[in-house]
Amino acid sequence: MTPLELRRQVRDGHFRLPTAGYCGVHAQANLVILPQQYAADFLLFCQRNPRACPLLAVGTPGQWNLPALGHDMDLRSDVPGYNVYRHGELAAQPQSLHEWWRDDLVVFAIGCSFSFEQMLIDAGIALRHVAQRRNVAMYRSSRANQVAGPFGGEMVVSMRPMKAADAIRAIQITSRFPAIHGAPVHLGDPALIGIADIARPDYGDPVEIMADELPVFWACGVTPQEAIRHARLPLVITHQPGYMLVTDIRNADLAAF
Amino acid sequence: MTPLELRRQVRDGHFRLPTAGYCGVHAQANLVILPQQYAADFLLFCQRNPRACPLLAVGTPGQWNLPALGHDMDLRSDVPGYNVYRHGELAAQPQSLHEWWRDDLVVFAIGCSFSFEQMLIDAGIALRHVAQRRNVAMYRSSRANQVAGPFGGEMVVSMRPMKAADAIRAIQITSRFPAIHGAPVHLGDPALIGIADIARPDYGDPVEIMADELPVFWACGVTPQEAIRHARLPLVITHQPGYMLVTDIRNADLAAF
Repeated sequence: MTPLELRRQVRDGHFRLPTAGYCGVHAQANLVILPQQYAADFLLFCQRNPRACPLLAVGTPGQWNLPALGHDMDLRSDVPGYNVYRHGELAAQPQSLHEWWRDDLVVFAIGCSFSFEQMLIDAGIALRHVAQRRNVAMYRSSRANQVAGPFGGEMVVSMRPMKAADAIRAIQITSRFPAIHGAPVHLGDPALIGIADIARPDYGDPVEIMADELPVFWACGVTPQEAIRHARLPLVITHQPGYMLVTDIRNADLAAF
Repeated sequence: MTPLELRRQVRDGHFRLPTAGYCGVHAQANLVILPQQYAADFLLFCQRNPRACPLLAVGTPGQWNLPALGHDMDLRSDVPGYNVYRHGELAAQPQSLHEWWRDDLVVFAIGCSFSFEQMLIDAGIALRHVAQRRNVAMYRSSRANQVAGPFGGEMVVSMRPMKAADAIRAIQITSRFPAIHGAPVHLGDPALIGIADIARPDYGDPVEIMADELPVFWACGVTPQEAIRHARLPLVITHQPGYMLVTDIRNADLAAF
């Protein structure tokens, strides 16, 4: 299935699954959609926090396609699930945005770790949460984001346990891809980034860390979702976690070198 | 002082110091000099163990200059100290090789971690052993080298304690330089690579590891020295540890990308 074929199945209501594992050669994206009056501040927030919020594309007000990300794209219907927040509270989980769309909405597409997970697996690095078909473990860290307007909060990190040699290789591989969170932000002792109990993630599923493994932490695309929820804007729309926008961009084309 | 000026001072007997900190922009090299009858096996040993034995240049039998490494070079006199081993035992520490030189001797120049240490310092990563003007801590690991002829043994690793963020940055920086040992081979728990007591290095000086630091381990140029000593060849000559060959090669020119 090509990304376009997948998006058309989503648009037609025939695909309502998490997108992990589909079109693995192509980048998937986090979506943030908010009114134009907050767009400049959110753009600045992404610029100031590039590890957590690597921007793949930004639309103009009312623009519901992003040609840079894919052919024949309709962001009002091409994502298998949306979350609508009003004043920071989840208000609806529609399957399309047609009745929510407004001409002042601005779309932000943010790089997603699914891309680098595929590359790690291709490099022979086992990812336990993938093997166990669970969600990656995510934690609110003590690292304050750089504030822009109403957007602030702390960096959310995803954690993957690895042997040291795999961690070193994973750093090399992910460093090539700043557009999909880039290199890890931490490895080793979780307490050093404010994580008190590694067995209890704030999001996703816990994952076992073996005696010969280190926890390796990447900046996570949940960071901007947290920041916008805490900003309590009258309206914000995102994808549902795990139900991503599948783009036409090849992951390999996102390599910085 | 240029590398050529330094080598001439060495040749004239006016410079008899460890070379760390001199001509920091230029690569320094480990030297191994052995009879032609062992050269093919040692070359194969280096090819099979590239992390520990990254070859910068290899001479032909009897060749005491290596034009690829520098102008007007005489390897019989341009290194501030030599170790001569007979049957694996240190037999002499001459300041020149003129009375030891033979037409069947082959020179191997192997990349040296001084090069990447300079780059780490330039990147703002503090190296405690450099700040304390001590030798780097080195350990015999449990990782067996790939054997070639009489050459085998275990990988020797050097260890530098770092905060996690610095370790990640150091992996990125050193990955660009496979010719000077490349990326670390391990980080975190020393026991996983057979190091029982991190406070007692097998070579060099111990260094403190702070609570918020990880030990980061690189393959070390002492590995081939260990391998040749254990091979107990009738004659092997090396530089004295710390008293390196200073080449004309710019470290930056050794970047793989």
